[in-house]
Amino acid sequence: MKQIFTHQQSAGPAAAAESPAAHTAGPTTGPITREELQLGARNHSMPLEALRRDITPPGLHYVLTHFDIPDIDESSWHLRISGAVDMAMELTMAALRRDPVITVPVTLECAGNGRSLLDPRPVSQPWILEGVGTAHWTGVPLAYLLGKAGVHPHAVEVVFTGVDEGVQGGVPHRYARSLPIHEALRPDVVLAYAMNGTELPPQHGYPLRLVVPGWYGMASVKWLQSIEVVTTPFKGFQQEVAYRYQESADDAGTPVSRIRVRSLMVPPGIPDFLTRNRMLKPGPVLLQGRAWSGGGAVTSVEVGIDGAWLPAQLDKPAGGYAWRKWTMPWVADPGGHVLSCRATDSTGATQPLEQNWNYQGMGNNVVQRISVTVG
Amino acid sequence: MKQIFTHQQSAGPAAAAESPAAHTAGPTTGPITREELQLGARNHSMPLEALRRDITPPGLHYVLTHFDIPDIDESSWHLRISGAVDMAMELTMAALRRDPVITVPVTLECAGNGRSLLDPRPVSQPWILEGVGTAHWTGVPLAYLLGKAGVHPHAVEVVFTGVDEGVQGGVPHRYARSLPIHEALRPDVVLAYAMNGTELPPQHGYPLRLVVPGWYGMASVKWLQSIEVVTTPFKGFQQEVAYRYQESADDAGTPVSRIRVRSLMVPPGIPDFLTRNRMLKPGPVLLQGRAWSGGGAVTSVEVGIDGAWLPAQLDKPAGGYAWRKWTMPWVADPGGHVLSCRATDSTGATQPLEQNWNYQGMGNNVVQRISVTVG
Repeated sequence: MKQIFTHQQSAGPAAAAESPAAHTAGPTTGPITREELQLGARNHSMPLEALRRDITPPGLHYVLTHFDIPDIDESSWHLRISGAVDMAMELTMAALRRDPVITVPVTLECAGNGRSLLDPRPVSQPWILEGVGTAHWTGVPLAYLLGKAGVHPHAVEVVFTGVDEGVQGGVPHRYARSLPIHEALRPDVVLAYAMNGTELPPQHGYPLRLVVPGWYGMASVKWLQSIEVVTTPFKGFQQEVAYRYQESADDAGTPVSRIRVRSLMVPPGIPDFLTRNRMLKPGPVLLQGRAWSGGGAVTSVEVGIDGAWLPAQLDKPAGGYAWRKWTMPWVADPGGHVLSCRATDSTGATQPLEQNWNYQGMGNNVVQRISVTVG
Repeated sequence: MKQIFTHQQSAGPAAAAESPAAHTAGPTTGPITREELQLGARNHSMPLEALRRDITPPGLHYVLTHFDIPDIDESSWHLRISGAVDMAMELTMAALRRDPVITVPVTLECAGNGRSLLDPRPVSQPWILEGVGTAHWTGVPLAYLLGKAGVHPHAVEVVFTGVDEGVQGGVPHRYARSLPIHEALRPDVVLAYAMNGTELPPQHGYPLRLVVPGWYGMASVKWLQSIEVVTTPFKGFQQEVAYRYQESADDAGTPVSRIRVRSLMVPPGIPDFLTRNRMLKPGPVLLQGRAWSGGGAVTSVEVGIDGAWLPAQLDKPAGGYAWRKWTMPWVADPGGHVLSCRATDSTGATQPLEQNWNYQGMGNNVVQRISVTVG
């Protein structure tokens, strides 16, 4: 059987799936692998021109699915709430739709965004910079349901489990993540059944998903089937093995949580189809983009023109953890230029000029740099 | 400036954009390039589990954009109809919405689908097998508008030009394609302003696009701004250079037009995150998928189990050029198996067992093969 026909087979090192840092096959300085291409073909990103929009349409919002997109019949679907609660519950969508409803604008970003720019490069979903998107999420406040269930005082975490099932790092499991109890009780954490005013698309977690504003996307469990309040920390694969900042495969590391401050720019001018190099006419052009952080409000964005940094104009905050628009007028003079942008948040955190390297390729919020040719 | 920062610069051979077959950088036996990864990150495909659905939701339907997704203000937008007609016209969306309306179910596929499976591999958008989708397209029959404009008897083609602009093969242009007059006058060719009953998403051509049932996607021009009836064949880049079946860079080749017969299967079982290898429990499983052809109705689908071919059960045709569902029960016994499917259409055309190689990597409708591990 020719390799070209059995593309679902591993075309990379056979050891890949057995790697200790099971979210990845370990860093490489080698070329892009077929596994990375397959993941990149499944998991779509947000073309950067969509940064012009406050809200990202569903088909442009980034999507990462670890396993397959489940095919769920809402009529037979239930959400189970159990564990260290006074009253366990089984809820239908009809019941959830009768509960109090909130809508929160949220910028979600994949924790692996920027991974493929790392050197050496962890082999996993090969995001460049577009693993992001902003949407209005509508549904039931998680805190309301936990209040109804009655959380026991000695509870420490809440575990969220989706329907999606597969194998990662040799471990069969359904996708599951936990939140510390104090995060789960935040008023803006929502069990969403609508995205931008319409039913959740299948790839975004239909019929119900968790949305945790300010945290990287891995916390916002999709296709949610159970919520369990626990009295000891959750040890599931996606919590203990994947989504950690590790220096090496042997390093226990620290958990990935809130989104690191980042800004991105709409690439100006027009692209070359194959290389995506940008071409621009000389003269005035309004550079624009968005900036966001899970750590605190974005307080400033600087734009770098060939390495010289200038302050950008910030629009009013969009509220919550939604990204903030920035603009900067520029007069493009003929020749080659490198444009970049760098955001800082209210905690003083700012984007690094050099790559933010770690073993799994998490949270690489290095400044974006765009090469343009003017003339 | 480090390469990892200037990802929009070419990381491949500098000659890429100057290649004679300008849709690609020419075939290679080398590893996947950064250009291919960038294109794969922008252009999203349809995860194969979406083959379970008659209609593909917008965010799961494949998208290929040669250049950037235009940001169009419908209120200032006009469609111009000109050339060899009795009466040139400028139409607003409001005017078009008052015209007769049709809805057609159409399976669209990218002409480059299957390209990355080719050996040697043309360097361009690196589709594996998922560059496909099916939607209901609603809008004005093109034939109605051409009738209103009054096509001159010596007209030979109709040229469709989008707003999207960029450079390909060193040639700056707006994306444009032509149709022979007899194809343009087909009753099922539609100027669509709605997809699956809702406004066109930006990436699918908002506010108006052409949809040519039965043809590969390159004919269905998005962000349509002008329609020109011409009396000599159109020589634009996307007609004369790109989208041709060529044996080599020097071969003038033949134009890509109708979709070659193809079938795809929903990969059974559960995946490994990284390798996408499939694991399956022993016992009965219903294999299912879809088949389509731009050449004629799909008349049969065979399913291959470890190379032995058996007929699949075909559902009723969905009508027009929409894909047709097929199923086949299988009892999975422990061990490794290779599953495949092969469709035949009413012209007698069937899918090849070996790759359908050509210089630009067009129309590779080789049978899909999926490796599964049972047990």
